[in-house]
Amino acid sequence: MRDSAKVILLICDGLGDRPTSGGKTPLQAAATPNMDAVSESGISGLMDVIAPGIVPGSDTAHLALFGYDPYDFYPGRGVFEALGADMELQEGDVAFRANLATVDANMRIIDRRAGRKGSKELADVIDGLEIDGVRIYVKNTTEHRCAVVMKGDNLSNRVSDVDTHEAGGAVPECKPRVDGEAERRTAYVVNELVRRSYELLNRHPVNEDRRNKGELPANILLLRGAGSYRRIPSLTERFGLSAACIAGASLYKGVAKYIGMSVKEVEGATGRADTNLTSKAEAALDALRTNDLVFVHVKATDNMGHDGDFEGKREMIARIDRELVSVLKDVDAYIAITADHSTPVSIKRHSSDPVPIVIKGEGVRRDDVKRFDELSAASGGMCRIRGMDLMPILSDFIGCYMMYGT
Amino acid sequence: MRDSAKVILLICDGLGDRPTSGGKTPLQAAATPNMDAVSESGISGLMDVIAPGIVPGSDTAHLALFGYDPYDFYPGRGVFEALGADMELQEGDVAFRANLATVDANMRIIDRRAGRKGSKELADVIDGLEIDGVRIYVKNTTEHRCAVVMKGDNLSNRVSDVDTHEAGGAVPECKPRVDGEAERRTAYVVNELVRRSYELLNRHPVNEDRRNKGELPANILLLRGAGSYRRIPSLTERFGLSAACIAGASLYKGVAKYIGMSVKEVEGATGRADTNLTSKAEAALDALRTNDLVFVHVKATDNMGHDGDFEGKREMIARIDRELVSVLKDVDAYIAITADHSTPVSIKRHSSDPVPIVIKGEGVRRDDVKRFDELSAASGGMCRIRGMDLMPILSDFIGCYMMYGT
Repeated sequence: MRDSAKVILLICDGLGDRPTSGGKTPLQAAATPNMDAVSESGISGLMDVIAPGIVPGSDTAHLALFGYDPYDFYPGRGVFEALGADMELQEGDVAFRANLATVDANMRIIDRRAGRKGSKELADVIDGLEIDGVRIYVKNTTEHRCAVVMKGDNLSNRVSDVDTHEAGGAVPECKPRVDGEAERRTAYVVNELVRRSYELLNRHPVNEDRRNKGELPANILLLRGAGSYRRIPSLTERFGLSAACIAGASLYKGVAKYIGMSVKEVEGATGRADTNLTSKAEAALDALRTNDLVFVHVKATDNMGHDGDFEGKREMIARIDRELVSVLKDVDAYIAITADHSTPVSIKRHSSDPVPIVIKGEGVRRDDVKRFDELSAASGGMCRIRGMDLMPILSDFIGCYMMYGT
Repeated sequence: MRDSAKVILLICDGLGDRPTSGGKTPLQAAATPNMDAVSESGISGLMDVIAPGIVPGSDTAHLALFGYDPYDFYPGRGVFEALGADMELQEGDVAFRANLATVDANMRIIDRRAGRKGSKELADVIDGLEIDGVRIYVKNTTEHRCAVVMKGDNLSNRVSDVDTHEAGGAVPECKPRVDGEAERRTAYVVNELVRRSYELLNRHPVNEDRRNKGELPANILLLRGAGSYRRIPSLTERFGLSAACIAGASLYKGVAKYIGMSVKEVEGATGRADTNLTSKAEAALDALRTNDLVFVHVKATDNMGHDGDFEGKREMIARIDRELVSVLKDVDAYIAITADHSTPVSIKRHSSDPVPIVIKGEGVRRDDVKRFDELSAASGGMCRIRGMDLMPILSDFIGCYMMYGT
């Protein structure tokens, strides 16, 4: 820990939007006196998190925001899921996201998300399996969601998903995405694992119990998002600062661990609309005592964008303002508020529309912007930056700057 | 063709300018109620078509505007001229722009542009020649202008121009621009072609006839702008959209063909000030029925910049507004209006001054800009983008987006 200025980086997932109801975005429509106060005393701008016109995923976006070029550093989603689930990863391990799902006897997918109680027990049955010399670890995270880690020689993340992304189809085969021995071997192990999961789960007591209650059995494990773990230089190594993560959703904890942040477990932080923002604010303040940078993540704004829920998104933003920004804005630290991408309620998906960003703190060039929103920020003193610019900019404010030349 | 939103991209060539008469640019001075209406309901910004301070050619600029990095994809001007002239090109062919010109008996250039009637007949005399196993095709396009294609093994575009770009000098020799067998061979073929063109043309009846009328003979073919054709991924392959080109000048049709657009022939579209903009508007609307993107190009604004004709440029802009934008602006599609570069009347050449851009359509973040011009656009919600950003941005609006990550 360095004895100097510190920074809180608040990322509201999918916050950016397009004008919808009454010509306003949810952020424009929301009551945000605290964010507006930050804007009034700070410097605003727009940010293309990856590049103009490129639609970011949440995973690649966060790498960019932390100064890691996603085109160089993206390991594949599974790595973040496994790290977020507190699983151990070593160089060469391949990790996946996985769903407990329901198939019929003909291996047709009835329900991609067979969640509810007992998922942990089912995952445990598969955990520890060995196929062709590859040791397989399975961990249930929330509801139907699991993370899978494969440990063995000669594995690759260049294999296709075992997931149709919609119900009704047959369980697809995992295939190599490039022709290579590691890819063929990995695809074989994945297919064998899927097949064995059905054998192990279909008649499992948890599922017999579900059937007795008229519920669908969670009788197969579907894998997707293969990622290949490698150790990369940490935030501390690259920027000379210590950092902590306050997040509910496991993906963001996974990204944080991947780049060497410490991850704080926060009671009531769920990654959903029911998340406890007061607990997160307290945890952030606590983490700030021993870290140079505290990354606070709120997921629910993105969920509401995906649901097309304008009112829900507007209210969630107002709640972030009321319960989180109100507390964080007056701390003796820099505060930066932004998003990882836009998720417009009108199109219910991520979009490339740039996100607003504001930075407040000692010495920033205060501009005339008085509102924190997508349009107001465009006339701010920061003009338009990229996600990859953010960490170097924040680092300089807190004295961990990167100088080139003399 | 996709069943979703569409976009009209209107490029006014060389539109950008610098303040001149009364402190205004031609665009500021012109009556543009329709462009202003687009600005009022859209989002504006500035665009560096290649990069800040880099002066774009029209050819490289258009590649950038369509999302093709010109530093990777520029094949040399001749390729666009040949494609624009509807000539067939295959991998490895080398193409040139060419002028019918007048030389005296000592091979000194009297007139670089010996146009007028009979050019086609003269070009036909040279067409089909074979030199050292290289088959040569020549096609007269407009006035003195021709396109030349060479087909044969081991040819290169790295050879110098046979053109002094001014009258008075001797016909220069074509030389390799790097030392290599293909370059030496190509330069030899070019020099031989120039020599043979004089033999074939000097005493041709068309030229005897010209001499009898006291006109200069078009007795030599001067080649420049060597380009080397290779097949590149099409717009459809890269962005998943179908596109059509509405242009008068052949260069732009050539660029369009190079990237796999369909080119619509439009009656009265000349690439000059006498172009029929009403026909172009109609053709654009027609093309929009079967294409995701329609590229409409108007050349004359650039010509007037090169001529230093402030009033002409101002009036041409007003005419584009009146006859073209008035029709296109209310179509059920996104509309983007911009330029490929600035051609300030004060300096009569292309410049790197960024060009204004406006995008109107469903969901764009409407800003406060109410005028379409170089200064008003600078305060718009788009801030400052690059030419290479435009296609990804437009693609996302119409649903053909490029996502990275999950």
